Amino acid sequence: MSIRTRFSLQDTEIPTLWYNLNADLPEPVPPPLHPGTKQPLTPDALAPVFPMNLIMQEASTERWIEIPEPVREIYALWRPTPVFRAVRFEQALQTPAHIYYKYEGASPAGSHKPNTAVAQAYYNKVAGTKRICTETGAGQWGSSLAFACRLFGLECTVYMVKVSFHQKPYRKLLMQTWGATVYSSPSENTEYGRKVLAEDPDCPGSLGIAISEAIQDAVTSGNAKYSLGSVLNHVCLHQTVVGQECIKQMELAGEEPDVIVGCVGGGSNFAGLAFPFVRRKITEKKHYKILAVEPTSCPTLTKGDLRYDFGDTAEMTPLLMMYTLGHKFMPPRIHAGGLRYHGMAPMVSHIKKLGLIDAVAYPQTKVFEAAVAFARSEGLVVAPETAHAIAAVIDEAVKCREEGRKRVILFNLSGHGQLDLAAYDTYLSGNMQDV
Amino acid sequence: MSIRTRFSLQDTEIPTLWYNLNADLPEPVPPPLHPGTKQPLTPDALAPVFPMNLIMQEASTERWIEIPEPVREIYALWRPTPVFRAVRFEQALQTPAHIYYKYEGASPAGSHKPNTAVAQAYYNKVAGTKRICTETGAGQWGSSLAFACRLFGLECTVYMVKVSFHQKPYRKLLMQTWGATVYSSPSENTEYGRKVLAEDPDCPGSLGIAISEAIQDAVTSGNAKYSLGSVLNHVCLHQTVVGQECIKQMELAGEEPDVIVGCVGGGSNFAGLAFPFVRRKITEKKHYKILAVEPTSCPTLTKGDLRYDFGDTAEMTPLLMMYTLGHKFMPPRIHAGGLRYHGMAPMVSHIKKLGLIDAVAYPQTKVFEAAVAFARSEGLVVAPETAHAIAAVIDEAVKCREEGRKRVILFNLSGHGQLDLAAYDTYLSGNMQDV
Repeated sequence: MSIRTRFSLQDTEIPTLWYNLNADLPEPVPPPLHPGTKQPLTPDALAPVFPMNLIMQEASTERWIEIPEPVREIYALWRPTPVFRAVRFEQALQTPAHIYYKYEGASPAGSHKPNTAVAQAYYNKVAGTKRICTETGAGQWGSSLAFACRLFGLECTVYMVKVSFHQKPYRKLLMQTWGATVYSSPSENTEYGRKVLAEDPDCPGSLGIAISEAIQDAVTSGNAKYSLGSVLNHVCLHQTVVGQECIKQMELAGEEPDVIVGCVGGGSNFAGLAFPFVRRKITEKKHYKILAVEPTSCPTLTKGDLRYDFGDTAEMTPLLMMYTLGHKFMPPRIHAGGLRYHGMAPMVSHIKKLGLIDAVAYPQTKVFEAAVAFARSEGLVVAPETAHAIAAVIDEAVKCREEGRKRVILFNLSGHGQLDLAAYDTYLSGNMQDV
Repeated sequence: MSIRTRFSLQDTEIPTLWYNLNADLPEPVPPPLHPGTKQPLTPDALAPVFPMNLIMQEASTERWIEIPEPVREIYALWRPTPVFRAVRFEQALQTPAHIYYKYEGASPAGSHKPNTAVAQAYYNKVAGTKRICTETGAGQWGSSLAFACRLFGLECTVYMVKVSFHQKPYRKLLMQTWGATVYSSPSENTEYGRKVLAEDPDCPGSLGIAISEAIQDAVTSGNAKYSLGSVLNHVCLHQTVVGQECIKQMELAGEEPDVIVGCVGGGSNFAGLAFPFVRRKITEKKHYKILAVEPTSCPTLTKGDLRYDFGDTAEMTPLLMMYTLGHKFMPPRIHAGGLRYHGMAPMVSHIKKLGLIDAVAYPQTKVFEAAVAFARSEGLVVAPETAHAIAAVIDEAVKCREEGRKRVILFNLSGHGQLDLAAYDTYLSGNMQDV
């Protein structure tokens, strides 16, 4: 072909190791603190919430951690994922930039989330867990964990933020098809949910509330553990298969990225793409511009404070050192439900503080303008979360055009948008507003 | 890994040729007849409807037809597609059978349909067409053509069967996101649509009616051509990339299929998988069992008559020699909208008559039982159309268990079901009935 646009790895090239950025940071991430004592957390304190194997992984500073064979066997359903060069999109933007994207949308749940869901379900299975509780916003995470639990024979209980439960019935149905039990959060199923509903029966819910409910369900029922789809170190770790594959694929393409872009909510898809490149930035002094893209309506990295804060609304979680808008922050109802989180992964927060990455925020109309431009040139309809990355890619590519300078841009196409078409409809019919 | 489950081809192994079964048939398919004169159709008679390059392809008996480079460049967005071995599904069925599937669900539109949509848009583009009209049932075809037209800068007008237009809003939104104009059929936009509505304002629509509307729009407007997503020879031809890739991939797996299964509506996904194997059955005397699976509510191959019939309700199309339930047949409203067509591809009908393939029909509750079993073991949620193939695969696998005999089964997983979750909901909540 005239221009090669697809860069696939062999079936045998699914990574065998996860990469742990904690091994290479110039200074360590501040430790999580016990919510009562405010002292660094001991592994035992987390034991009611997570299985011990994941707790140890959360605290690990080992550089490479072996991916268990049963996890890789399920990864094979969609990994290795392809990298594409978006030549039609480049042409539409009339840019000298070369734009590459890693396509994580072909997983069974449609996003990057199964990369950690499968790992977490596996570690819970071997630790003897029978049921996993979690929260979900738009449903990308809940559906991924439902899928993973099903394959390991675990029960799965999902607290889905009420506004999404009603706006996004398809992802709820996807979870149910995989056999999960799904509650609209705040729910009558937990003490905390009942408390919230008593104060405000019309509460639209938030990720912070849903996290509190899922933790409470897990620790009070005695037979279950809790699972988080982003933010934590071990979640970022599991996602590093994305960036590791990309490094090989950019070699296949014979190019080195100048700009690396991912959207951020809790931080996991960004971490997955970025951390293996951050390693090279630290150890090989590479000059990458690594860009985290968030919504202006939930501007954690661009307007939040870096301080210890709770991960949830009910103050049940450990205190994490992170950029935060405050754990009582109630984000507006934007269409990128997966980016409506008040905090940011401590590891992502830390490398932002160290100046290893940059951050930028976009309003949702601009984001959907980018998504439609991408769909109509490249041909793929992306998730609203992913569209934030594309908005930033367009600005970078336009800058290249204006400066007459070729740069290589790589972004994480973290999920497809086939279950988010109602949001496209709102945009295309002129009814979308910035909040 | 313990058992290899994924068999991918190289990026460079996208087929370069389509395979034309007409070159190898022991007797030719009876020609299409002019609807007025009842004489074999001349190419000129089709010129108002299709561009001449596709008309010549429709009549071709050349064995191998080169795939144009611009078509292969777009195929690279999702091709070559992987073949998987469904080991978890085998275990769930406790069968000695080895079950393989070709996964066509990762295309931008979520099914095999873009294989021909891209080709048809390309040939129209080079012939000078500005706009393409088509019909769609569940929306798999309409969204695929909308995608393809967009990439070649053509306008796209879709007549979507009314019952699906309202039941499946997401596929309509997908078409609109790619810039297509979508009408609920029967519509006020064509003379034929207005006639149908005058007789029955509540008419739920059918593929036959929508085809009539799309043809009428194309031929009366003067600036447009018509496109069909199944049935015709050139559509079956374009889909043969599927089966050609499978032959290589089964070699990678080191196995030869005994049973080859695809669902049938108009016949194109089945043809795509089956025709390259039918060739081997004819030329190399292979003993494949090749099975076409249809709904009991639209039993074209199992209960239809083989005779000349119209492709549409308004009797505008040529007469095709095919298994048919009669062009006035109004299929019940089943969830597999893509299988609600009264006729069957003439080439598929012909090889059925010649005894080269078998056919079987399943009711939709049995079909969804199969789909849920597959989702909960293998992890993939499939389209209701595809689920028909899975129902037959289960019966074949159970037969292997009962006979204590290993056979190799290969089926076409023609599309994912993420836009069909309302149908899963109907099934899971116990509200699905056979019709």
